[in-house]
Amino acid sequence: MTTTLTQTTGAATVPATMKGIQKTKAGPGFEWADVPVPNYGTNEVLIKVLATSMCGTDVHITRWDEWSASRIKPPMVYGHEFCGEVVALGTSVTSVQLGDRVSAEMHLINPVQTPTGTRYEDTRIIYGVDAQGCFAHYIALPALQLVKLPANITPQVGACLDSLGNAVHTVTRGDVAGKTVLITGCGPIGLFAIPVAKALGATHVWASDISDYRLDKAREAGADRVIDARKESVVDVIHTDCVEMGRTSSMSLGVDVVLEMSGNIRAINDGLDALAYDGTLVMLGIPPGPIELDINKRVIFKNARLVGCNGREIFRTWDIMLDLLAKGLVDINFIITHEMPLSQFGEAIELVASGQTGKVIMIPDAL
Amino acid sequence: MTTTLTQTTGAATVPATMKGIQKTKAGPGFEWADVPVPNYGTNEVLIKVLATSMCGTDVHITRWDEWSASRIKPPMVYGHEFCGEVVALGTSVTSVQLGDRVSAEMHLINPVQTPTGTRYEDTRIIYGVDAQGCFAHYIALPALQLVKLPANITPQVGACLDSLGNAVHTVTRGDVAGKTVLITGCGPIGLFAIPVAKALGATHVWASDISDYRLDKAREAGADRVIDARKESVVDVIHTDCVEMGRTSSMSLGVDVVLEMSGNIRAINDGLDALAYDGTLVMLGIPPGPIELDINKRVIFKNARLVGCNGREIFRTWDIMLDLLAKGLVDINFIITHEMPLSQFGEAIELVASGQTGKVIMIPDAL
Amino acid sequence: MTTTLTQTTGAATVPATMKGIQKTKAGPGFEWADVPVPNYGTNEVLIKVLATSMCGTDVHITRWDEWSASRIKPPMVYGHEFCGEVVALGTSVTSVQLGDRVSAEMHLINPVQTPTGTRYEDTRIIYGVDAQGCFAHYIALPALQLVKLPANITPQVGACLDSLGNAVHTVTRGDVAGKTVLITGCGPIGLFAIPVAKALGATHVWASDISDYRLDKAREAGADRVIDARKESVVDVIHTDCVEMGRTSSMSLGVDVVLEMSGNIRAINDGLDALAYDGTLVMLGIPPGPIELDINKRVIFKNARLVGCNGREIFRTWDIMLDLLAKGLVDINFIITHEMPLSQFGEAIELVASGQTGKVIMIPDAL
Amino acid sequence: MTTTLTQTTGAATVPATMKGIQKTKAGPGFEWADVPVPNYGTNEVLIKVLATSMCGTDVHITRWDEWSASRIKPPMVYGHEFCGEVVALGTSVTSVQLGDRVSAEMHLINPVQTPTGTRYEDTRIIYGVDAQGCFAHYIALPALQLVKLPANITPQVGACLDSLGNAVHTVTRGDVAGKTVLITGCGPIGLFAIPVAKALGATHVWASDISDYRLDKAREAGADRVIDARKESVVDVIHTDCVEMGRTSSMSLGVDVVLEMSGNIRAINDGLDALAYDGTLVMLGIPPGPIELDINKRVIFKNARLVGCNGREIFRTWDIMLDLLAKGLVDINFIITHEMPLSQFGEAIELVASGQTGKVIMIPDAL
Repeated sequence: MTTTLTQTTGAATVPATMKGIQKTKAGPGFEWADVPVPNYGTNEVLIKVLATSMCGTDVHITRWDEWSASRIKPPMVYGHEFCGEVVALGTSVTSVQLGDRVSAEMHLINPVQTPTGTRYEDTRIIYGVDAQGCFAHYIALPALQLVKLPANITPQVGACLDSLGNAVHTVTRGDVAGKTVLITGCGPIGLFAIPVAKALGATHVWASDISDYRLDKAREAGADRVIDARKESVVDVIHTDCVEMGRTSSMSLGVDVVLEMSGNIRAINDGLDALAYDGTLVMLGIPPGPIELDINKRVIFKNARLVGCNGREIFRTWDIMLDLLAKGLVDINFIITHEMPLSQFGEAIELVASGQTGKVIMIPDAL
Repeated sequence: MTTTLTQTTGAATVPATMKGIQKTKAGPGFEWADVPVPNYGTNEVLIKVLATSMCGTDVHITRWDEWSASRIKPPMVYGHEFCGEVVALGTSVTSVQLGDRVSAEMHLINPVQTPTGTRYEDTRIIYGVDAQGCFAHYIALPALQLVKLPANITPQVGACLDSLGNAVHTVTRGDVAGKTVLITGCGPIGLFAIPVAKALGATHVWASDISDYRLDKAREAGADRVIDARKESVVDVIHTDCVEMGRTSSMSLGVDVVLEMSGNIRAINDGLDALAYDGTLVMLGIPPGPIELDINKRVIFKNARLVGCNGREIFRTWDIMLDLLAKGLVDINFIITHEMPLSQFGEAIELVASGQTGKVIMIPDAL
Repeated sequence: MTTTLTQTTGAATVPATMKGIQKTKAGPGFEWADVPVPNYGTNEVLIKVLATSMCGTDVHITRWDEWSASRIKPPMVYGHEFCGEVVALGTSVTSVQLGDRVSAEMHLINPVQTPTGTRYEDTRIIYGVDAQGCFAHYIALPALQLVKLPANITPQVGACLDSLGNAVHTVTRGDVAGKTVLITGCGPIGLFAIPVAKALGATHVWASDISDYRLDKAREAGADRVIDARKESVVDVIHTDCVEMGRTSSMSLGVDVVLEMSGNIRAINDGLDALAYDGTLVMLGIPPGPIELDINKRVIFKNARLVGCNGREIFRTWDIMLDLLAKGLVDINFIITHEMPLSQFGEAIELVASGQTGKVIMIPDAL
Repeated sequence: MTTTLTQTTGAATVPATMKGIQKTKAGPGFEWADVPVPNYGTNEVLIKVLATSMCGTDVHITRWDEWSASRIKPPMVYGHEFCGEVVALGTSVTSVQLGDRVSAEMHLINPVQTPTGTRYEDTRIIYGVDAQGCFAHYIALPALQLVKLPANITPQVGACLDSLGNAVHTVTRGDVAGKTVLITGCGPIGLFAIPVAKALGATHVWASDISDYRLDKAREAGADRVIDARKESVVDVIHTDCVEMGRTSSMSLGVDVVLEMSGNIRAINDGLDALAYDGTLVMLGIPPGPIELDINKRVIFKNARLVGCNGREIFRTWDIMLDLLAKGLVDINFIITHEMPLSQFGEAIELVASGQTGKVIMIPDAL
């Protein structure tokens, strides 16, 4: 199958086939496979992938856990974090132009109404999970999904915007301006949240983790104080610092906002314990299953809020994120720790699983 | 000891002694004891109790559970829900007058600042728990605690305002105007919440419980649909009703706001399950201890909020409550199911513990 | 021109021509003209108009004021308030079915993104103003615009939903639950706002106007107190009532929320004067031009908010409105004061302009 | 009259008399007068003034405008911006200690309730306006008014906290995190608002004025772009910059939040014109009288909010301000442009009135 030339209004030469990281059949593993360059419809765009990145979901898909087995339909090229260049346009597309550098919202956006009830339609379809993704030389997407990037954003940074968006959304839901913040879990999203929280007005940021590597990165990210939860009590550190800040009354002792990025039960409990009266804990990290919480002491008697955080605000989260990057108010380059050819995806998976990385960028090999 | 006559500016004849429900010594039980009429300071007021009521806390104190044993210091007259008449004024009091009908905020209000940190001081002192209460002929309180009642409020209704305030506070934290509401747990506070939610703009109220008596009362209170959680699935009932209302999209299917009044684990889980995407569950009921919750599916993926609810907003909650009562927008008389002399406190305790009552009013016996 | 039969999936017999209220050429007046039944595209629906209504805009268009002259492009059938029945479907339409009773959002909805900046596109196109309207036997609209009506809504009520939506939106922006409300201006939208504010939790509603007819209607609509601004001081009436409600402190004396529906300078000033400290004035009424306001005393020193109110929240406003109607929490039938054939549009215009009406319903004459 | 020694628990030697800037009799001018060191009650504190500053109010009092004539009761020492050291304590004071460095909330705080209606009592009493102020060697204040300062705050900065608080309050009411901001008017409060807005998350700050001196200071304060409103169109500059930022849609073109600090009619109109759809204009500057506004185009059709800003949130504003200063997130030293002995108050007044200053600090002369 070839890309129908009559569909395109552009001049770029697009090959008929490419290579991609493909789950070829149900089960663990992946294949660096030859696949057709995807076709694109009248409202769609073909994008040449300049850089791509991965998150925990891609590790799960590769290793084929229970969730993957129930959701992924092989054969499929996966991946949902990328930066690329527009190389061909469907005939109805006017919102982007050939040569534009773009990233994309990978949750399928469906603004069509149903006349009764809520009108923001709940498509739970994600490109790279339920439809072909970006671990390849090319990806086709509806123009509606695309986000045009400011000139100062490199392909490497552009490939991190999906994760960075999670951090921006979590921080904005925490309403951190003028408040103290604890970030529990310093994987890439937790690390991103540190400079974002400071840019959006947090007055003090603690960051906790149990890995030397990540704590060092958190320090580099600008945390005012990192807490090694293996050796220190999160609550004790925060209470001591609060007293030093003059927050000594029983209602102000504690942190105003916790951003929970780990899904770890102990981290969640540390966060709830450290929370000041009337505080807010925003949960992005996914616990492994049901968890036991002392709702009485840690939520009800504290008049606290526990806020679940799903997805993003489309496109408000993108707007804030691009503003922060374009104006240099947030710099995430130091969180990008590795770069390798996309064909070495197996090594990249191992690296990410080791916990000894920030974001790992993969560049599609020359065709 | 006698009430110092020089302190009072009023003319009412106040005896030197009275009778009250007293925890005379540590352990289960109580005594209908002779006690002195309390003295009152320059900023305090002496109030003749016209009617009093009880809540679960008073049952706990009487039966002497672990919490009571750790907190109550006998001998002490307890009780914290009442309506009374001002019979004597401390010399500095100007905010109320002799003859005024009043109830009171029973959490000691301490607006003094500490110059560093938050200025709303956290006194956790409650009259009737940590200081002498209202199960007696008279009670003395700082004028600052008093709330003057509109003329149309009877002593019986006035004795319910502490519980009703909990309901009003929970409903206002749920921000129910234009939304559907589920109330889990139809004890007195849950029952109060039904007409309050409707008065403050809820468009549909479901109420769930596991007692025929309480479900009947919930129907009487104005619930649009009561759910017997022993026989029906709360989630199924709500989903079926939602479809009938045209709320069929996956995001609108469910209830907008849950007001959790039971502290029961199953009710909490029912509430979280029934919650629509982006919904809010307000928790007032106190679970018996730490509980296991499926935070992933029920909070994070639903973008939901779990809001702890402690105390009241002093005095915003009182203002809204008195407005609703004064204007007849909320009528709670049908929830007042029993009335008896205060000396029959033992029988009243049994009644309340049976779960077969609304509010039980106790009138101090003639002296 | 005839309606292309191959486009429709329905069986209703639709004629090729109909009659409609048409601005045939620039200038005052209108024509009850023979016009083709509108064609409809693949994503559009043909609707038989069962009832229609008018607002001030239609009076302006008929009389051809400056605004009309600059915006209306004759020949055009106008009108933007209606209830109808779906009689034919474009081939791609699945969200409604033949026979459905519908009304419609008449602002053209365009949810397409532009990749930089805000994504809610600003189409300022209104059916009945910029494109063919509903003062006719049939109207064609994109399926996306349609709102399916609950069974208990009559065509007469369904023809009022555009105006009622303005009232619902203004009330929700005022956040009235638990608050006192003043409505200045008791034309149809002001009248609608009275039961809506009460249904959404307002504890007391004053309504002011300068017409006996409208004040009577406001009383019928459920206002707790109507104020004849010709004979009484709005501020004095409200202050007196506040004192009676016990709102005597300098900060609580006044009304919490004003909903300004008149565009009248004196009414706006009355509203600002009557506002309590920290109050909110929501403005829907359009003043005739720039107006002089004492911002110092009435806004800054009062810590007040002045909130402009444009359009609706699509579709949140519709959802709340349909809920209130479907559940009988708001009944607007008494505001519908007149009904006549659509061909008598000239008489209807005179009636509306007289100010001696609620809503005037027009039924398309039998074809 | 002497300071009663038995009242104090401290050891500092306090003289019986001091000098102060006094309005000795009604009319223009002031006197550097000998006055008694103020007495202090059991809940009060005597403070040695280390540094003091002035605002426009003090210029008005000195020149004796209409407002001053109606409010000030000579003879009175005025002034309400200062930093000092606690030198003596009333016998009931426990919240501060001898030697503490403090500033103070100068609006008399009265948290006493009135049992009906709102409980935040509206004392409009200001120290330095209605009661003795700080332009002297000593000032006595209730302990409740005092704010203990972090160690890194110099007396000069401590003397600016009243003005800085106005800026912090205005910025927090604007909810600027993640938003673009225009500050109209670059007097000291406008200048303070620039670094505060950036610290609290503003992504871009424009600042407009009509004085070269102030525009230079605004640039120094960190404004991303200063606008000389004499030579440039505020709206044009902002629209051009928005396009460069990719904010090109008709709804995003404009500034999200305007902080109006000038009270100037043209600046207010510039701000309203520059506002994006759904934007907020916060008004702190006091216009000279009623002003004419095009509410239709600039507020209603823009769905905009106009927010009056009176006073501060006591003590939330202080908490945020002290946090920002203590952590070095806001540095205001460059706005402090002059320092002189308090006895040269006449020269200081002239300087401030010239508009060619930031804050002018006055140090009480050695006694």
